[in-house]
Amino acid sequence: MQTNVSTEEKPKTTIPQKFVYFFAAGESEGNAGMKNILGGKGANLAEMTSLGIPVPPGFTISTEICTHYSEAGGKLPEWVRPAVTAAMAKVEAKIGKKFGDVKDPLLVSVRSGARASMPGMMDTILNLGLNDQTVEGLAKSSNNPRFAWDSYRRFIQMYSDVVMGMNSSLLEVTLEDLKEEKHYKLDTEMTVDDLKILVKKFKDLVHQMTGQSFPADPWEQLWGAVSAVFSSWNTPRAITYRELHSIPASWGTAVNVQSMVFGNMGDDSATGVAFTRNPSTGEKAFYGEFLINAQGEDVVAGIRTPQPITKIAAAASGQMSLEEALPHAYNQLVEIYKKLEAHYRDMQDIEFTIEKGTLWMLQTRNGKRTAAAALKIACDMIDEKLITEQEAILRLEPSALDQLLHPTLDPKAQKTVLAKGLPASPGGVNGQIVFSSEEAVEWKEQGKKVILVRVETSPEDIAGMIAAQGILTSRGGMTSHAAVVARGMGKCCVAGCGDVDVDYRNETMKVKGYVLKKGDVITLDGSTGEVYLGEVKTIEPKLEGTFERIMKIADGVRKLKVRTNADTPKDAQTARNFGAEGIGLCRTEHMFFGPDRIDAVREMIIADNKTERERALAKLLPMQRDDFYQLFKIMDGLPVTIRLLDPPLHEFVPHTDEETKDLAKRIGTDFERLRSKVKSLHEFNPMLGHRGCRLAITYPEIYAMQVRAIAEAACQLISEGKKLIPEIMIPLIATDKELDTLRVLTVNEVKKVQAEKGIKFDYQVGTMIELPRAAITADSIAEYADFFSFGTNDLTQTTLGLSRDDSGRFLGTYVSTGILPKDPFMSIDQQGVGSLVRMGTDLGRRTKPHLKVGVCGEHGGDPDSIEFFHRVGLDYVSCSPFRVPIARLAAARAALLGKKLH
Amino acid sequence: MQTNVSTEEKPKTTIPQKFVYFFAAGESEGNAGMKNILGGKGANLAEMTSLGIPVPPGFTISTEICTHYSEAGGKLPEWVRPAVTAAMAKVEAKIGKKFGDVKDPLLVSVRSGARASMPGMMDTILNLGLNDQTVEGLAKSSNNPRFAWDSYRRFIQMYSDVVMGMNSSLLEVTLEDLKEEKHYKLDTEMTVDDLKILVKKFKDLVHQMTGQSFPADPWEQLWGAVSAVFSSWNTPRAITYRELHSIPASWGTAVNVQSMVFGNMGDDSATGVAFTRNPSTGEKAFYGEFLINAQGEDVVAGIRTPQPITKIAAAASGQMSLEEALPHAYNQLVEIYKKLEAHYRDMQDIEFTIEKGTLWMLQTRNGKRTAAAALKIACDMIDEKLITEQEAILRLEPSALDQLLHPTLDPKAQKTVLAKGLPASPGGVNGQIVFSSEEAVEWKEQGKKVILVRVETSPEDIAGMIAAQGILTSRGGMTSHAAVVARGMGKCCVAGCGDVDVDYRNETMKVKGYVLKKGDVITLDGSTGEVYLGEVKTIEPKLEGTFERIMKIADGVRKLKVRTNADTPKDAQTARNFGAEGIGLCRTEHMFFGPDRIDAVREMIIADNKTERERALAKLLPMQRDDFYQLFKIMDGLPVTIRLLDPPLHEFVPHTDEETKDLAKRIGTDFERLRSKVKSLHEFNPMLGHRGCRLAITYPEIYAMQVRAIAEAACQLISEGKKLIPEIMIPLIATDKELDTLRVLTVNEVKKVQAEKGIKFDYQVGTMIELPRAAITADSIAEYADFFSFGTNDLTQTTLGLSRDDSGRFLGTYVSTGILPKDPFMSIDQQGVGSLVRMGTDLGRRTKPHLKVGVCGEHGGDPDSIEFFHRVGLDYVSCSPFRVPIARLAAARAALLGKKLH
Repeated sequence: MQTNVSTEEKPKTTIPQKFVYFFAAGESEGNAGMKNILGGKGANLAEMTSLGIPVPPGFTISTEICTHYSEAGGKLPEWVRPAVTAAMAKVEAKIGKKFGDVKDPLLVSVRSGARASMPGMMDTILNLGLNDQTVEGLAKSSNNPRFAWDSYRRFIQMYSDVVMGMNSSLLEVTLEDLKEEKHYKLDTEMTVDDLKILVKKFKDLVHQMTGQSFPADPWEQLWGAVSAVFSSWNTPRAITYRELHSIPASWGTAVNVQSMVFGNMGDDSATGVAFTRNPSTGEKAFYGEFLINAQGEDVVAGIRTPQPITKIAAAASGQMSLEEALPHAYNQLVEIYKKLEAHYRDMQDIEFTIEKGTLWMLQTRNGKRTAAAALKIACDMIDEKLITEQEAILRLEPSALDQLLHPTLDPKAQKTVLAKGLPASPGGVNGQIVFSSEEAVEWKEQGKKVILVRVETSPEDIAGMIAAQGILTSRGGMTSHAAVVARGMGKCCVAGCGDVDVDYRNETMKVKGYVLKKGDVITLDGSTGEVYLGEVKTIEPKLEGTFERIMKIADGVRKLKVRTNADTPKDAQTARNFGAEGIGLCRTEHMFFGPDRIDAVREMIIADNKTERERALAKLLPMQRDDFYQLFKIMDGLPVTIRLLDPPLHEFVPHTDEETKDLAKRIGTDFERLRSKVKSLHEFNPMLGHRGCRLAITYPEIYAMQVRAIAEAACQLISEGKKLIPEIMIPLIATDKELDTLRVLTVNEVKKVQAEKGIKFDYQVGTMIELPRAAITADSIAEYADFFSFGTNDLTQTTLGLSRDDSGRFLGTYVSTGILPKDPFMSIDQQGVGSLVRMGTDLGRRTKPHLKVGVCGEHGGDPDSIEFFHRVGLDYVSCSPFRVPIARLAAARAALLGKKLH
Repeated sequence: MQTNVSTEEKPKTTIPQKFVYFFAAGESEGNAGMKNILGGKGANLAEMTSLGIPVPPGFTISTEICTHYSEAGGKLPEWVRPAVTAAMAKVEAKIGKKFGDVKDPLLVSVRSGARASMPGMMDTILNLGLNDQTVEGLAKSSNNPRFAWDSYRRFIQMYSDVVMGMNSSLLEVTLEDLKEEKHYKLDTEMTVDDLKILVKKFKDLVHQMTGQSFPADPWEQLWGAVSAVFSSWNTPRAITYRELHSIPASWGTAVNVQSMVFGNMGDDSATGVAFTRNPSTGEKAFYGEFLINAQGEDVVAGIRTPQPITKIAAAASGQMSLEEALPHAYNQLVEIYKKLEAHYRDMQDIEFTIEKGTLWMLQTRNGKRTAAAALKIACDMIDEKLITEQEAILRLEPSALDQLLHPTLDPKAQKTVLAKGLPASPGGVNGQIVFSSEEAVEWKEQGKKVILVRVETSPEDIAGMIAAQGILTSRGGMTSHAAVVARGMGKCCVAGCGDVDVDYRNETMKVKGYVLKKGDVITLDGSTGEVYLGEVKTIEPKLEGTFERIMKIADGVRKLKVRTNADTPKDAQTARNFGAEGIGLCRTEHMFFGPDRIDAVREMIIADNKTERERALAKLLPMQRDDFYQLFKIMDGLPVTIRLLDPPLHEFVPHTDEETKDLAKRIGTDFERLRSKVKSLHEFNPMLGHRGCRLAITYPEIYAMQVRAIAEAACQLISEGKKLIPEIMIPLIATDKELDTLRVLTVNEVKKVQAEKGIKFDYQVGTMIELPRAAITADSIAEYADFFSFGTNDLTQTTLGLSRDDSGRFLGTYVSTGILPKDPFMSIDQQGVGSLVRMGTDLGRRTKPHLKVGVCGEHGGDPDSIEFFHRVGLDYVSCSPFRVPIARLAAARAALLGKKLH
């Protein structure tokens, strides 16, 4: 018998023709354009040799082998080895030394190098090729036994740690013991004999702890190191990093094997790192640090304090600069950095080693920088004619702008991390914790700064959220109520912080053994999701001229309009200041929670018949009219999309008996009747329940009141000589007939008001496309719609069958195991939900070729999603006020990327 | 300014070229094929004239005018009138009398006639054309003043009731008063003078009550009657009937205006109704009733007891038959009924009137019949070579078979209706009401018959549902837990009975003023949704040879395989008896509720780590293995699809503190810990939560145990020489990677078991397609699937964003207003959800052309949905055991309908 199972026979990835690339002055097989297979480091090493820049010869094993390594179950396939041996032979020929030669051995470094720079992977093994024999050869050939034995013990430490999985502290302790025994203070005090003893002890310890002898054969060392690099691609830390930065597991890492040069051969040797411009401020000044007589990691490790490279920088601290210490090498370095920046046309982050006065470059790459620096460098480089305006746009990471728009935590401040949740809404804030919305409001009134801590928030917490500096929730995802509302308000929020255990009864939160009481101070970093104990200092954002300049360039390029999601005059004003071109989503339900109106809303909900309901609605009408009047006025002629009531009615009613009793008394009704009414509103799956347009199919008078409020506000503004174009949006449409019915209702109500006031005005009636059925039948729905707005939050929930409020329990596993590339509530699931957006748009425009189509879900502020929406051909995106600049930049990038593709 | 609103300019339905169709012997403009525009009655009247059968001349106003009537806001458009006037002139010419002629007036009847026979609409107005003048003419021309005045008073009664909206009881009382005053017993005792007085009183009363004079002008009478027919298309009762029978509102009704013939002109006159075969049993025997000297409704109204038509039938009751009373007319009638049956090749339901010895036919139509009669008639007609086997299949209504499969209420029994809910699962049962599952089990053990009454049921009620005769719930739809489980069990269930107010605390249910206590007896009719007070007698089903014969014909025709949804050996056996060709869905979670295992399930759920979880799973393994062993054994080599665990875990844990305390004690854990664990499982939208394959992504060991149980059971059967093909089905797949991951897990576990036992067996790994994303990306998912099974329940919920448990509050409005043509949980939404089924099937087969595709949602047992699935090209449907015969017949019909189209 045979099974029908086909998984096992899946074909393996094919073996590439060439997968080892040699590099040396004038002889490199790679170049900067080959990052995908050589990784960033390997590609740039090859590129530098072609520019005539001194680089120690070596070779790169391509990223493709990383995939083969994983597929082979974490083993280096045999067929890889001959090509590596051959490349090593070329290096030997170039250097004139032999790998493993006992007289004058060639030593190599082994480094990882992925397509994108990636912390968490194995970084570097230096001095590979040393053993008890070759170390003697090195001692003789360098005429420096101490250097040779010190290199050897460093090698054993590094190798046993990263390749053999040895606990590195054990060797560290052995070294410290020996120093103590000898009363040494510095490593450099150790003699050759000390080092020899240490090497012996190290090897014994390695054997004892790992059960394996430390490999003496240089080739065995090499295969081990290469394998370790490939393995490190899948360490938990690397995986986490990839998730955070959306790097596919399939990219893999390359391995760079390079002949060693030594910065630790005396006072004419050094090693250092530098940036071609200041990475914090963007200032055009060479910026870096070095150490005399040191090897690679010493600069980074922080054992000795590195010195500034330039005289100017060193002057402040009274240290010796490289410019002064090794002027010849310095001048060569300056020449090289200028060449590199001109060649790459971007700020470079470089590494170098000076061996006995000779400069060698070990790495160059585009340097990481703060958002402020990125803007300044982009503007400067445009002025220097190094790059075009369009290139400047393409280089800027839209989401980095977030840093500039909110107060941030002072990076220099001392911090005690309590927990880490989701970075739901950026900013850095501190305050005293409170556990109820009421208390937040009270304390605020007493002049206190508070952080509202809740298991999760509901619409009833709005007042508290407004009063608080920031919001912390222990449940809910990036698009939970807390997250969405906070982003809308531009308020700092850390959501879904599972380590925090909120105890409402005792008004405490437990986290990592701490029990924080009401009034205790914490600090939130909404950009990282971190929660800190006590007050951490913050710095206010400064928007420089560079910001305005870049935004203007972006506006000239982009095709997508950018609107905002705003429910209050304050939000609308903020968004306009940030350049919003209209309101894409005004959620009218948020207007229902004001203390002056919530009771009228509740009367409407518990009404037993239409007459009672209409009486309650009549109380709300003037308030809604004023809401809309204010918004229209601020938006001053720009389009304003008003979504009619969407959430299920039970969101507005009290849920405890006590609150219900209070309410019954206030509105003069019977407690039992009220309670049973409230109970009858309960739903098993409110997300899929009696909400959106379904409310208006059963209670048309609700939408009729809202439409009347819009129309009356419009008439008022027209009579004041203002212009406006209200767009009335019907939520949760599943069928064309729903929209047909409610469009008729809307038009009739508008006509009535226009007739009453004797005033006409332009308006549109459109719908949200937020259910799969609406996207699938968009051609029929478009018959009754003047515009579509994709509600991608709900569309994601229904298409994936995934409740955003409940997905926290497993979504993490989904992203970490690569089942989903990203949290689909943060960045649109292009294959699934995206297909429906495309289908809905295409079908809608088949019926109405010029149908206006936008998106108003949270994805409207996500750069990757914005790029997708541009490709699909939407007219606009709408996002929370603080994401408007990000969306403007992302839309511009999308337009430029689109052009590149064509 | 102009609005952008386009709704108002929607073009109206175009005016048809011809819309009034004349009929009279040899001159008819219509025929039986024109039911769509003439309605059933009109088309058949025309057809009969063409067959040379005597029919009083008249004309039909087409169904299209019904739409125009509605669009004009319930007014008859002016342009309709000339055509009607012209048709009336033709009738006048044919009869030789004039409409409104004071000497010898033409009188007409006005009747509605839709495409499908439809109670609830205006039925008939007779004697139209009478007024104070024409009545005298009729008196003279008929030489029978009493007949003329009796006809007049009848006309006023009918017309004022159905056209003028008068409360008919007022005129009835007036008549009774007069009889009492005169000491009459029968209407026939009234003299001409009495009748004249009555007519005067009637007209006065009409004026007094309606504010309008009774119309004297015959044309005014006619327009009023025609309008009343069209209006009656939209009465609440007609709308309700349309919903229940899926008749679109757009069909409209026709109006038939026909010259009167009189069965009340003396003892040589009569009126009657008949069936060409017995509609209850199907027996081939002329069957009907008549009344001498009576008009139309008298037969139906039940004032006088009608007599049987044939001598044989009359013999039993000692009454006079038509055969004896009016032998000439009888013989003519026999000739006609035979001609009609031969012509229509179906059992006919006919109406006739004999005026002074002359027979006139007033209606023929295919007769309604019981399911048993339908089968018998079909088989007889095949034998008579009247119809082919295929025609027989096409004529049978699959869902009618339901009647035959369950005990039903005795139609002759006296009943008091308490309430009406949804006909969730058919059958007729009675029993004492209990309000908890525990009590149901206890009472059952005491030998009592119980009806379980719950607000709604949950998986914890399974034991009670098994113990009960039937289930009544006050909430939930056709696919609520109660409904689905009951249908699966073949158990009678009335769900969502909103009028029933269940009070658990007092153990009572309130309904229509009654307060029923625990132990009171009620009866449920699961086929109509009705709930009766006390015990109503039931009759057991008898499956005749005709059933087997028809099923065999159906099996020879159909392309779709029919499987069953079965979780227990009993269900599986029932389904096999009904002809199921395999199990399409075994819901393993139902197996988890047994009292011997639920605690182990709970231990598994609250486990803090994998080890604890695996320990609990180990307890479940032998039980699950036995579950599967039993099912495989019964299905004896037929395919069995086992769905791995699907529901969210919180469905298995207790929800009250008391139950939690009990459980904590039983499994030896801390109450507080247990409670907090249970609490942490709460979800806002469990439908979209941590369930299905998501459980296995986070806890792979759950599926591993289930797969092992399947594999071990398979090995055991193989070792016993049995054959089997287990199909392992992974639920709630949204992405290809989920399935990839879980397929690997499944295959590995099967391999392990096969290696341990040294036994190999065939098996398949497939998935449910029940999320829009799965359908949209089915091509990628098919890479890892040996089969697809559409879970259309969940697919409907997600595609429409509609929770089946919460939709009760508005779905009724949706269907009654025509926004949705049907409840999408009962019959698949072909445009929306159906598109995804088609897309998923096509994409899946693009990857694997021979991919096996089925459906296992509730729609698998719905005839219309089955027809759709046939068209899409699915391989099988799976439905509850009691619906298997229905599905077999529906699949055969679908295949035949498909052929007809090609």
